[in-house]
This record gives sequence, C-alpha cells and structure tokens, in this order.
Amino acid sequence: MRDLLRVPVGEVVDLSAHDAAVTPAGPRDKAAGRAETARTGKPLAALQERLWAASTAGDRRRILLVLQGMDTSGKGGTVKHVVGLLNPSGCRIRAFKAPTPQELAHSFLWRIRKALPRPGEIGIFDRSHYEDVLIARVHGLVPRSEIEDRYDRINGFERSLAEDGVTVIKCFLHLSYDRQRRRLLKRLDNPDKHWKFDPADIDERALWPAYQEAYEIALRRCAAPYAPWYMIPADHKWYRDWAVGRLLLEHLQALDPHCPAADFDVEECRERLLKQRDL
Amino acid sequence: MRDLLRVPVGEVVDLSAHDAAVTPAGPRDKAAGRAETARTGKPLAALQERLWAASTAGDRRRILLVLQGMDTSGKGGTVKHVVGLLNPSGCRIRAFKAPTPQELAHSFLWRIRKALPRPGEIGIFDRSHYEDVLIARVHGLVPRSEIEDRYDRINGFERSLAEDGVTVIKCFLHLSYDRQRRRLLKRLDNPDKHWKFDPADIDERALWPAYQEAYEIALRRCAAPYAPWYMIPADHKWYRDWAVGRLLLEHLQALDPHCPAADFDVEECRERLLKQRDL
Repeated sequence: MRDLLRVPVGEVVDLSAHDAAVTPAGPRDKAAGRAETARTGKPLAALQERLWAASTAGDRRRILLVLQGMDTSGKGGTVKHVVGLLNPSGCRIRAFKAPTPQELAHSFLWRIRKALPRPGEIGIFDRSHYEDVLIARVHGLVPRSEIEDRYDRINGFERSLAEDGVTVIKCFLHLSYDRQRRRLLKRLDNPDKHWKFDPADIDERALWPAYQEAYEIALRRCAAPYAPWYMIPADHKWYRDWAVGRLLLEHLQALDPHCPAADFDVEECRERLLKQRDL
Repeated sequence: MRDLLRVPVGEVVDLSAHDAAVTPAGPRDKAAGRAETARTGKPLAALQERLWAASTAGDRRRILLVLQGMDTSGKGGTVKHVVGLLNPSGCRIRAFKAPTPQELAHSFLWRIRKALPRPGEIGIFDRSHYEDVLIARVHGLVPRSEIEDRYDRINGFERSLAEDGVTVIKCFLHLSYDRQRRRLLKRLDNPDKHWKFDPADIDERALWPAYQEAYEIALRRCAAPYAPWYMIPADHKWYRDWAVGRLLLEHLQALDPHCPAADFDVEECRERLLKQRDL
C-alpha cells in the first residue's frame, strides 16, 4: 500500500485527477473491508507492544500518524476505527483546533512539538501543523511570504523528526465535493449528530477550490522521502480505514522492533520465586 | 455490578476473606466472558460519544477510572482490553511510575491534578495517588503521621472532584498470592515478556502481607459515597475485564448524557447546502 498510495516526491499534484471513490488493492466490498480491518488488529497490537518494549531498552523509534482532510473526510472516524485497534496506553493522540492566544504567541510549530510521541509510542495528529499552510493560506491569516517560509520550516522540522527516530506517516484523506455534501446533510438529518455540525462549515465548503489548491501545494512542497504523504481515497469509509490500517501495519513491519533480552539471570529469578514460602 | 462489588463504606476490610478467583454474577466461562465483554464495546462507545457531545455544550461531567492492584494483577491488561473498547480520542490515560525529582518537589497530588480528565473525557489512571499510601507506607518512605494525613487529603481531593462533575470509579484488582507467582513464572518462561520483568518484583512480593494490609487500610479509609472503591476478583483475567467493563457501562448509563440540541436553524442549513452550486 505504501508504494501505491504514496504521493510522488517533487511532482505537481492535481487532486481533480484522483477519484476519491476508488478502492485500489482493497477488499472487494464493505463487509470484506470491515472484516479485514478488524483482523489487522492483532498483528498491529503485537507490533505496537514490541515497539514499546524496545523503547524500554533505549530504542528511540516511534510513529507519528498525521491525519489531514476536508471536513467530514473522516479524521475522527479513522482515530476511532483504526487507532482503536491499538493498545490505547501506547498512543498519544492530539486533535488540533484553532490555536489559542497562548499558542499564537509562539511559533506555529510550538504546540506541535509539545504533542509529539515519545519513544515507543504511536502518536496521532487529528489535523496538524499543515493547517498553518492550509486554512492560513485560504483565509490569508498571515502574509503569503510567511506561508512560503512555512513549507521550508515544515520540511526542516519533519527531517529532524526522522533523524530522531520518528517514522512520519502523513495521510491526506481525499474526499469528493459531492460526498462531503451528503455527509453534511446526513448530520443534519440526525439530531444526535447536530453537535458535530457548525453552520460555518457551509461557508468553508464554499471555499472548496481554494482548499484543494492549498492541499495540492502542501502535498507537492512537503512530500519528502523522510516524511511521505499518502493520498487515501476517502469516499468509502471502509476503504479509508482499511488503507490507513494497512499503512500503519506495513510501517511497523518495516521497523521490525524487537523485545529486548533479559538483563538479569532468568534461572536465578525462577528459583527465587519457587523458593518463596507460602503465606 | 456496582452494588455487588462496592466496598462498604466505613467497614473493616479483610482481603483474606475475599477469594480472588470467584466470578460473581459473571458469564459462565472464559469464552462467554470474552464475548460478552466485546459486546459491551458498542453501548460503551455510544455512551462515551454522548458524554463528549454533552461537554461541547458545557456539561462538565467526566469519568475517572482508577486502577490499583499488586504487580501482575492486570492494570495494563484492563487498559488494553476494556479501555480498548472505547474511542481512544476521548480517553486520557496516565500510567504513574515512581515520582520524578520534580514531582517529589511538589505535593503528592500535584502530578495527579495535572493528569485529570477534562469535561466529556474518560480518564484512566494505571496506579494513582494511592501509591502514596501503599508503597510509601510499606517502605516507610515518609513518616507514618504523613501517611495518616494523606488519607484525609485524598478524601478531600476526591470529594472536590465529585463536586466538579467527576465520577470517580476506583477498582482494586484483587489477585491471590499464588496466582501472582504463576504469572511471574510465566513471564520468565517467555523471552518476549522478559522486558516486563524486574527482579525487584520478587523482593516486593516478599512484602505481600504488608501490601495487603496497606490496601485494607486504604480501602477502609478512602471508600466514600462520592468516590467508591470496587473490589474486582482478578485471578481470572476474563472476569476482571468483564467486571470493569460492566462497571464503566453502568456508571455511564447512570450519567445518561445527552447530545445537545442544535443551536442553529437546521432547515436553513439544509437549504444552503442544497443550493451550493456544483464545482
């Protein structure tokens, strides 16, 4: 899946040329997809445990899964269904909202650095520092020259992460304009989902072409060998979850973490335990 | 389950009178228990979403699940198997280790306060402030008068949490001395689990009676109507997980959180969405 979904480095990105409803290399339908995603849980959790175990012996490696996408593209759903397969105690999840006054008083990477996974952990960003070249660009929140500068700073930042043992997996959940309308209407149809709806989402939707362009530039400028972007067709939720799960699994398999060997005398410990008197 | 497992308030606790291998009101065996725990996932996650939704409209309620128990009693396993049923984005998990020099420079509740769940969240403590009256008591880390003082401060702290909308669920995972030996030996048998083993665990095990006494005192002094202790028979992992899952479910059902109603004009939003032109 990594080779199939990876955004080529240094090439122009045209989102309109990518169908968001395709299911490349995926299971044949929703039922099969859901079942296969569920089956990924066991190997995922086993590899996650080994990643954590290795960290107890000084291995600094960890994973950072970055989820980006338009409203209703399923960032939250991916956390629920894919990250939900992992052992929650080894996950460090952060959803980034509009920056607070305190956060705005710092560099845009300040709050990102504070939320990074520690060695052995799997970090998950629901939105990320990319908002600072997406919404910030579309709404002109900072001068264009500052936006230009940010792509370079993001690249430098992500390179330093990779050098520090962080496997950065950036997923763009690619949703179609029509599918977004259907999902927003569905939220309106269900009173239990009204809390998820904000009328301002409709105004943002009107800026769809500008957002697509901002994504195309971000994907082109920040797709790097040390921090690849993956384009996940996201019109089908089951495919989106399956694909992100596969990506996580393949990266963990490539890391191939190992449980550290005992740094104590196993036989002596066994004897001591067996000799301890009964109560 | 709440009534069945709750430690009575104000009564002497004698752990030796409680069999750790019983399965009161539980499913008939391991297979049925595992299946029933899995089935709890859906209603748990649905209630958790409503708890979170309510918080977006100002509801300050949240849950704090405190897990305590002897080594190998299954605190980590409970997080994996029970908390793993929830949406990880609404969970705030903290495992407390030996306090750092910075933490020791503050009151013992300082690091606890920093890790509390925010409104709408489910907080999980793997160990907690109770270590400060358990290991601290057994090893005489502070004067006995300070330990005595701490029970009162814990009660005052937990009362203030309850008044601020925190449902405190304290679970003592009650393990037998024999079962602990079996589990420690099993870790030694499996090289993939050696990283979990510390020879110092054997020395701690030699202090079993002192720890049991420290737990009995903590349960008696800090079982309160606003922050009850539950005693979970933990020799059977499947029962432990099932019981903690049930407790969580019952507390969430009692909270009965509701998704807030729309604070916008649903019909008007629907029309605006339908009128937005195609790309």
